[in-house]
Amino acid sequence: MAEMNLDRDLLMEEGLEKILSNLDEKKYFSARDEILKFNSVDIAELLEEVTENSGIQMTVILFRMLPKDVSVEVFAELPVDDRNKIVDIINDKEIEYIIKELDFDDKIDVLEELPANVVSKILESTPKSERRLINTFLNYPDNCAGTIMTPDYISLKKDWSVREALDHIKREGMDAETIYTCYVKDMGRKLIGIVSLSTLVISDDDIRIKDIMRTEFVYENVYEDQEKVAADFTRYGFLAIPVVDNEFRLVGIITVDDILDIIEEETTEDIERMGGIIDFDDSDRGYLDVPVIQHVLNRLPWLVILMIAYVFTGMIITSFEGTLSQVISLVAYMPMLMGTGGNTGSQAATLIIRGLATDEVEPEDFGKVLWKEIRVGLIIGVLLSAINFLRIVLFDHEGSMVALTVCTAMICIVIFAKMLGSMIPLIVKKLGADPALIANPAISSISDAVALTIYFLMAKVFLGL
Amino acid sequence: MAEMNLDRDLLMEEGLEKILSNLDEKKYFSARDEILKFNSVDIAELLEEVTENSGIQMTVILFRMLPKDVSVEVFAELPVDDRNKIVDIINDKEIEYIIKELDFDDKIDVLEELPANVVSKILESTPKSERRLINTFLNYPDNCAGTIMTPDYISLKKDWSVREALDHIKREGMDAETIYTCYVKDMGRKLIGIVSLSTLVISDDDIRIKDIMRTEFVYENVYEDQEKVAADFTRYGFLAIPVVDNEFRLVGIITVDDILDIIEEETTEDIERMGGIIDFDDSDRGYLDVPVIQHVLNRLPWLVILMIAYVFTGMIITSFEGTLSQVISLVAYMPMLMGTGGNTGSQAATLIIRGLATDEVEPEDFGKVLWKEIRVGLIIGVLLSAINFLRIVLFDHEGSMVALTVCTAMICIVIFAKMLGSMIPLIVKKLGADPALIANPAISSISDAVALTIYFLMAKVFLGL
Repeated sequence: MAEMNLDRDLLMEEGLEKILSNLDEKKYFSARDEILKFNSVDIAELLEEVTENSGIQMTVILFRMLPKDVSVEVFAELPVDDRNKIVDIINDKEIEYIIKELDFDDKIDVLEELPANVVSKILESTPKSERRLINTFLNYPDNCAGTIMTPDYISLKKDWSVREALDHIKREGMDAETIYTCYVKDMGRKLIGIVSLSTLVISDDDIRIKDIMRTEFVYENVYEDQEKVAADFTRYGFLAIPVVDNEFRLVGIITVDDILDIIEEETTEDIERMGGIIDFDDSDRGYLDVPVIQHVLNRLPWLVILMIAYVFTGMIITSFEGTLSQVISLVAYMPMLMGTGGNTGSQAATLIIRGLATDEVEPEDFGKVLWKEIRVGLIIGVLLSAINFLRIVLFDHEGSMVALTVCTAMICIVIFAKMLGSMIPLIVKKLGADPALIANPAISSISDAVALTIYFLMAKVFLGL
Repeated sequence: MAEMNLDRDLLMEEGLEKILSNLDEKKYFSARDEILKFNSVDIAELLEEVTENSGIQMTVILFRMLPKDVSVEVFAELPVDDRNKIVDIINDKEIEYIIKELDFDDKIDVLEELPANVVSKILESTPKSERRLINTFLNYPDNCAGTIMTPDYISLKKDWSVREALDHIKREGMDAETIYTCYVKDMGRKLIGIVSLSTLVISDDDIRIKDIMRTEFVYENVYEDQEKVAADFTRYGFLAIPVVDNEFRLVGIITVDDILDIIEEETTEDIERMGGIIDFDDSDRGYLDVPVIQHVLNRLPWLVILMIAYVFTGMIITSFEGTLSQVISLVAYMPMLMGTGGNTGSQAATLIIRGLATDEVEPEDFGKVLWKEIRVGLIIGVLLSAINFLRIVLFDHEGSMVALTVCTAMICIVIFAKMLGSMIPLIVKKLGADPALIANPAISSISDAVALTIYFLMAKVFLGL
């Protein structure tokens, strides 16, 4: 047996081929039977492929032939664009049915992305109490705990016996997002305890809930940033965390399966920011689905800002033009010195930004970080200088004074770039902003300007220009 | 009420202060009572702080005073260095007790990192059957499913009734890593079905397991890469995935709480690689715990490789020295053109590397990616050129031919850098390597050399040099 994922990929590919050829021959029922061999996540992916190969009409035909409960699950897994296209084509009854049957957190997710006119039509036909709940959820600020939580949790009473609790779970469990953690509230809806299903299952039937519930537990405020929530899941390894409002009333729960998606989103955002890309596009479309103009808008800001930085670099060079024209060979080492400064500064920045994200480094560690980077910079600078000294004297046949200029500049530039790259993220964090926003390109550009100044000053000293 | 995490951070800080002052006054029992107000994850972090403030001896004193079951959980959460220091100080009986009581997957984790002599001493006193199991687990290759799975799962028989299954879980559940998913094997230990505790709890007592178990499910091969396993958890949102050997026998399960740590590790690795850092250090120590020499070793390879690339850049400049000395003002625009090329190339590389990691882009999308990047590059190139033309003519008072040289070069460089930055990760992936290994610094350095060549060629054309 080959590697597992190859297996699954292969199965999906074979499945897709059969589905497409069945659709081609208008054998819709065979195509449906083929696609139903997969789980809903995989069906959603197969439907995407069908859209790409045979058009959205074919996808809608297949989608409508799915058993109702499967179609609801698949709908929640489809990318935003495909969902909206399907909503455009299928009739209002079908849309209503799907929205009604979705888990509450998926429902909010879907409604947030649907066109406004569709949303208001759906809300019209929703019972008043649920409509109010949906509106509350839709109104939480983006990226806070409120937007990812679900109100479908199991709520127990503190005076119930384990038997009563299990019977209650048996009745209500079908509609809950998870039954693995249950919540105990007091009369004022304040959260007073949590109890896991595993505790219930291994406890005797007549024990009271209040005697086995845990009264000290981790919770989140409804306005907490989703990145913090994700960090807490990673830290504690919980399956679910309760969400409370400012009066400590339980308003919902967040489950770990939703957190995995958040972590992926947040990681992408961090990596893109470090790469000098600011994603102004609110939908979470993938690279290929983002239109060219949006790509331009996401990438242009940093490039333009850095353009301004290069004006200064240009000015530094112009002011040293006299020096340069006397020893034109100095120009040949400019890219190396600037490049090494930029690269070594980015290395330091990368480590510190990631360290801050994983809580391994804190802004208070300023002194420790600085001292470490100065030592690392000194060693790296001396090693790189030694390599360069040999190269310049032996291969480039330049005078030892040029070599000395380049090598002394190299040591200073590396140490400086390490200090700059490590300190800037700490300062940005201390100021309360996201350190990843100070993209690596910015670090390189600043160190470019400084590298040149150091280089030319060294040239003045050693070459007496 | 302020933000939640501020609350918790504040609580931890206050707790630490009380603990430290109690320890100072040798009120060990008060210190212990204070630390026991926290959960085991937080206790581990507090102990780290105690080590930093009052030394490892104080930590060991506190650690020994923890209730046995708490000390085992805390031990599993401590960083490697602290664990090893504690093992050095406490006696063999205590070590044995802790190792014996650890969950199986934590046990493997701890044993992997302990010094070899301690491990063999521990294994001597372990029952033979468990010793064999531990040895098997310790021998799986690094980073594969086998190293993160646990054999402590609940196993059910297909002919049992739901009642029998629940009674079995009640007896065995305490020792299992999770009871939320249970596994059904045939006589040959092959995995034939899975059933979730929620299904059991909401099903009637006399239904047979074989009638409610799911026979189609996602599984992993024991040698599957842990990054792939993590991707499957994100994709499907499962709480646990079974692990089978090549004969489809169930050998263990992987739970989502362990996956969250893997995702964090793998993300850190990817981000560091993209930043030009290769982590040769096998332990997962944080930035501050890695010694200076290790930092140097991790960062030096790319810097040295790029040094060689800069030799070529230097050679290009030298070969155009004649051109440069005639129009020395051309030098002033070199950093801008090289820098913009590097930055815009890194942007493309960042997007593609991340797209590949999240499966949004595949090596087969070569053509689509290329076409998109050429268009994005053209638009960005033209916009940046327009800004520069104005700047060069109006502010720098250079001739329009110099401006034309710089601007035409800019457009070509941006398009080329976008193509380079997007294609190289796709090619590396196609060759089966990790695209993140082609760090952004490498992309900038290659585009540096190309940028200069384009620039000087344009100068020859427009300035007739």
